[in-house]
Formats: sequence, structure tokens, C-alpha cells
Amino acid sequence: MNHNDAIRLFAKMLQNVEKWMDKAAAHAKAKSFEVDVLAQARLAPDAYPFVRQVQAACDQAKFAAAYLGGKQPPAHPDTEQTFAELRQRIQKCLSFLETVQAKDLAGAEDRKVAPPWLGGKWLRADDYLMHVAIPNFFFHATMTYAILRHNGVELGKMDYVGSLPTKEG
Amino acid sequence: MNHNDAIRLFAKMLQNVEKWMDKAAAHAKAKSFEVDVLAQARLAPDAYPFVRQVQAACDQAKFAAAYLGGKQPPAHPDTEQTFAELRQRIQKCLSFLETVQAKDLAGAEDRKVAPPWLGGKWLRADDYLMHVAIPNFFFHATMTYAILRHNGVELGKMDYVGSLPTKEG
Repeated sequence: MNHNDAIRLFAKMLQNVEKWMDKAAAHAKAKSFEVDVLAQARLAPDAYPFVRQVQAACDQAKFAAAYLGGKQPPAHPDTEQTFAELRQRIQKCLSFLETVQAKDLAGAEDRKVAPPWLGGKWLRADDYLMHVAIPNFFFHATMTYAILRHNGVELGKMDYVGSLPTKEG
Repeated sequence: MNHNDAIRLFAKMLQNVEKWMDKAAAHAKAKSFEVDVLAQARLAPDAYPFVRQVQAACDQAKFAAAYLGGKQPPAHPDTEQTFAELRQRIQKCLSFLETVQAKDLAGAEDRKVAPPWLGGKWLRADDYLMHVAIPNFFFHATMTYAILRHNGVELGKMDYVGSLPTKEG
């Protein structure tokens, strides 16, 4: 596993999120409610709603790709309110991830990563990936899934994991 | 990031889970309820309860360490019912993770991983780590956190992330 693999993994998971949203839309249709109701659903009164969980998952992937690849992160304002807008947000994020390729990420291990919230301190790029990007990305992806699951959308573990590059023989 | 870093990350997160359980115990005491009530809490009627989420997080870490390190995974039967028992389960898992060291994990990238549930197919060790172990480990760790959060335990993002190896200068 290397930095490029991690960015591709984030991209795959964001595509999985879109498929969970498809299932949420089908569930809403079957139950005759507006799917965008789920955009504001949350697991606790002071926890992020679905819309913010998707935005945060996208941001974790975007900032990881930018910091690890030595690129400027594009601004993606958190203005989305609907499932349709969230799909566009995911697509914007995926498009940026595509611009950060293996050659940009090669040898990034020791690059210094100093996001503003560290207040002047920094992390080695490897540490940023392991202690910040991966845990936080999967936190928000899983919370996205959990909110839908809690609201009755029929999702199973294979929807979460998505396709696997299995081999035979 | 390499395989050894991933196993150490799982160990750190399991230690974080224990701290969330400390906060759950404090919350239960403040609200005068038995903390083990939370062991059976779940986010949906057909989702795993807290106890099973902790067991599953431990298993993802255990199997990843065993498969990637070329060791036999020890049997850890899912018999826990209480917070006290779950703490012992986490400790058993951490003890096993300690036995799988960098030298065991070095050069594991192309080792074939063929867990029984793949029905005869297999994954490259790198693919197992990226597509199975990391997503599933963080899924169950986050669900553990989400169940407590949903039940009023005061947890914040820094409880989830835990300590960071920041540097200055």
C-alpha cells in the first residue's frame, strides 16, 4: 500500500457513497417521502447531518490528495442541500483526485503537512495519511452509511465495501 | 505507510475505543444507568449491537495482522456480554498484535490472502489491507463510536482520532 493506493481507495469509497445514495433514493420512493429529508438526518442532535458527513468525507480525500501530492487544494464550498447537489460535490472531488497521480505522490512519505488546524505544527506525510486522513475519511464515510442505515435504507456490508480485486487460481 | 504502520494504527484505535468506553461508563454513572445496557445498543434493529461492533473491530485487526504477518490467527470466541469483558477482548487482541512485528510484515505486499469467506478466491496482501482490512476495521470502530454518540455519550472528534505525532519547527 502506498499513497497513491490510498487516494484511489478514497475515490472508490466515494463512488460507493453514490451507490448508497441510489439505494436511499429507491427507499424514499418506495416509502413515498422526499429523499432530501435524509440530507438533514443525523445520529445525535449535535452530530453532523448526512449532508455534512458527505462534504467532510470529500474534504478528507481532497486535502489528503492535495497535501500528499504537493498540489493546491481547490475550494469546494459547503453549500449543498440536496442529494443532487451532493452528487455534484462527489464528482468535483473525484475529478480533483484524478489530477493527483502516482507520479505526484511518489516519494511523498516525508513531505511536511501543516494544515491550518494544527496551529503551526506539522505531520510527516505518512503520519498525516495514517493518523488523520484514513481515520477521518472512513469516519465520515461510515457515518454517512450509518445515517442511512438508521433511517431504514437497506444497506449491507458489501454495499459498504464495494468491489474487491479478487484473483483465482 | 506500510503494513506495520497499519497494524500499529489498528492498535492505537482499539486503545481509543477503550477511552470511549471510559467516557460511556462515566456517562452511565452520571445518568444512573448500568453501562452494560449500552453493550446491546444498536443503530438499526438488524445492525450489530455495540458488543458485536467491538468484537468485529478486534477481528479485523487480528486477521489483518495474522494474514499479513504470516501467522496463525488465535481463536477469540465472541462470548463477551459486558464492558468489562469487552475490555479483556481488546487486551487479548492488542497482545496478539504485539506479536506481529515489522520483520514479520516486511515484504508482505504480494503474499496471497485467502480468507474462508472468499470461497477459494484470494487477494494480494496489499489489496486485502486496502480493500478489506482498513475499510472494515474503521467501519466497526466508527459504528462503535456512533452507537455511544447516538446514546448521549459526550464524544468528540479528538476522542475518535486520539493522539497525533505532530512535530514543531
